[in-house]
Amino acid sequence: MRNPTAAMLVIGDEILSGRTREGNAHHLAGALAPLGIDLREIRVIGDDHAGIVAAVRELAGRVDHLFTSGGIGPTHDDITAEAVAEAMGAAIGVRDDARAILEAHYARTGQELNEARLRMARVPEGAELIANPISAAPGFSIGNVHVMAGVPAIFEAMVAGLLPGLTGGAPLLSGSVMVERGEGEIAAALGALAAERPELSFGSYPFTRPDGRHGTNLVVRGQEPAAVDAALVRLQELFG
Amino acid sequence: MRNPTAAMLVIGDEILSGRTREGNAHHLAGALAPLGIDLREIRVIGDDHAGIVAAVRELAGRVDHLFTSGGIGPTHDDITAEAVAEAMGAAIGVRDDARAILEAHYARTGQELNEARLRMARVPEGAELIANPISAAPGFSIGNVHVMAGVPAIFEAMVAGLLPGLTGGAPLLSGSVMVERGEGEIAAALGALAAERPELSFGSYPFTRPDGRHGTNLVVRGQEPAAVDAALVRLQELFG
Repeated sequence: MRNPTAAMLVIGDEILSGRTREGNAHHLAGALAPLGIDLREIRVIGDDHAGIVAAVRELAGRVDHLFTSGGIGPTHDDITAEAVAEAMGAAIGVRDDARAILEAHYARTGQELNEARLRMARVPEGAELIANPISAAPGFSIGNVHVMAGVPAIFEAMVAGLLPGLTGGAPLLSGSVMVERGEGEIAAALGALAAERPELSFGSYPFTRPDGRHGTNLVVRGQEPAAVDAALVRLQELFG
Repeated sequence: MRNPTAAMLVIGDEILSGRTREGNAHHLAGALAPLGIDLREIRVIGDDHAGIVAAVRELAGRVDHLFTSGGIGPTHDDITAEAVAEAMGAAIGVRDDARAILEAHYARTGQELNEARLRMARVPEGAELIANPISAAPGFSIGNVHVMAGVPAIFEAMVAGLLPGLTGGAPLLSGSVMVERGEGEIAAALGALAAERPELSFGSYPFTRPDGRHGTNLVVRGQEPAAVDAALVRLQELFG
């Protein structure tokens, strides 16, 4: 049985302009691998309605789960919920369940639930809410699209609540061996080993230390613990 | 006259598996903005030949410049040059100019230019080399596709050599105002201002300090210095 597949769509002008270094994709990647959900693509686009609609349709049609990050706050540039609703052919408006969550939160914190904040209760019909334990305003899942906040602490909390409910697959296991030789010296034998073991993926990542010494980290990824272990032993024999 | 547009394609299983946190896209974004080259999309995909070919064709057909990162080393998983050649309909083989660069480098460092290392001299016909002042093996530009290394120090050095030769546009200017109020309180007035100034882009980024106090960074982006400054003054008046 094949593993479920996933893609991530990050929405935000601030990343494309260089203002913000994106980190949610790295967090999600690290959370999906042990669940056996294979992340196939990460895509970052700007705050543009038509661009979001097109990307959601394309990616959601191609993978089992599409995760989005960004654009669900109260301001004019928060346009993700509307665009996802359009992409999925769903109506969208302020929903009573989401409004109740916001009302309770703002009553508790003594702030006003004004019109801008109420926009955060706009959720497509048929979507399930994703809890936000930090600032209340929920994310949502509609079909195979999971819409989450861009603020890293909130994104991470939403991921933590969402992922246990998804069906995973065989976890992607990995191990690594550090070799005090350059990539060019070990490439031939490494390539031959990779060709012998098509069920495993062999990665090769050169590094240079501050003192100028260089070497290579060799990473083996696969789903069978015994096969990964055997490959690591073999790498150690070849290059250790 | 419109600004040139760009996309970035990052190639590497190690990013999708969560092993490596990608940083080259953030570096490129920060380098393109002052040149007036508008970065429209960042995409991360795995080490898969067909996937790279398809992504290069799609993105290179849509923007003025496509920058790639990763997959041009000596090992079996370095498949970017081949895939880009196929996407661009160019033949590829070991080229004399690239081989001469490698020969000089390995002679100088007392290492062998073996078959694996010679793979790094495989460059599509008609491509221009991009200098690698760190480890010699060049990147290349073919048509509007610029192929660079994934190792951050090498990527950054290649970008530094490449960008001055590209035609830019009106730089994307930005300024920001920090406001000690939540996004929900300022959203209505901010949205009205953004609607009045369609030539500018207004971003709103909430933050929470370690002491629990929260606020919002408001960012104005545009190409006219006077318009950006006027908008910042207005934001200060409204929310300062």
